[in-house]
Amino acid sequence: MAARVLLQQCLSARLQVKEVEEGAAAEWVQIQRGTLIYVCFFKGATIDIIPKMVNTLLNVKLCENNEGNYVSMLDLPANVIIIPQATLGGKLKGRSMQYHYNIGKEEGKELYEYFVAVCEKEFASNAKCAEAGVVVRHGTYGIRQVLQMDTNGPYTHLIAF
Amino acid sequence: MAARVLLQQCLSARLQVKEVEEGAAAEWVQIQRGTLIYVCFFKGATIDIIPKMVNTLLNVKLCENNEGNYVSMLDLPANVIIIPQATLGGKLKGRSMQYHYNIGKEEGKELYEYFVAVCEKEFASNAKCAEAGVVVRHGTYGIRQVLQMDTNGPYTHLIAF
Repeated sequence: MAARVLLQQCLSARLQVKEVEEGAAAEWVQIQRGTLIYVCFFKGATIDIIPKMVNTLLNVKLCENNEGNYVSMLDLPANVIIIPQATLGGKLKGRSMQYHYNIGKEEGKELYEYFVAVCEKEFASNAKCAEAGVVVRHGTYGIRQVLQMDTNGPYTHLIAF
Repeated sequence: MAARVLLQQCLSARLQVKEVEEGAAAEWVQIQRGTLIYVCFFKGATIDIIPKMVNTLLNVKLCENNEGNYVSMLDLPANVIIIPQATLGGKLKGRSMQYHYNIGKEEGKELYEYFVAVCEKEFASNAKCAEAGVVVRHGTYGIRQVLQMDTNGPYTHLIAF
């Protein structure tokens, strides 16, 4: 496995992207109705898998439209927050989680940032999404992902790549 | 695999357990700081695995205490919401998710309810949890799991059984 992605649907969500620092408040991004994409890369993952991952994720039919049918993120169209979530790579060992299969931090950061860039590009180049003013936001790699979300059912799905 | 569990940490969470009906408002449960346990059973799962699952989940060290150390749900102690989440069993096929490996509805309901009962019993029989007034809440099997959560980082983990 090169990557693991968790998808949760939301009515709105808010994610901290900069922690409180002396003299500066925390910074947040937020979206209305859409999808949270939590992503974790494993050792051996390379940049080649990113376009395929993004294509799969943006086209799988997991978003409920106003008629109660499930359509893709591009078709809804869904707003998106991409969340780096290395903990998804954890493997239970006794009473603790180990992360031996996770990619290294520097490589993981590169892949994450490329993943974000490809997502942004795909949404921006889709006419329906551009017209609807779809928002693509993302968390900051390596910091705590302080998250609030409001759902009409998270409808949680896992996809392995 | 007999079951898949997803854990997310929260500062507070609120889950709908009864949908709006004519003449009656929706009903919700809520917890303060603790853990969301999303659970999905696969074909072939039997009641025998439940005590082992609960023992593992309640003792794995994924809850951050006030000192920034990770301790178990029983040690924090954590409040809990158990959420039935059959979508976790989905497998990607083309642009759709298929749920062929999921357990049947009736069997799934039995396992879910037994899982809830064993969790409740374990928390109730733990002196620290009883003293702290730990709250164990759960969603209603088979309905939409309308959920709101506020986190200091969901710290999302998957455990397969």
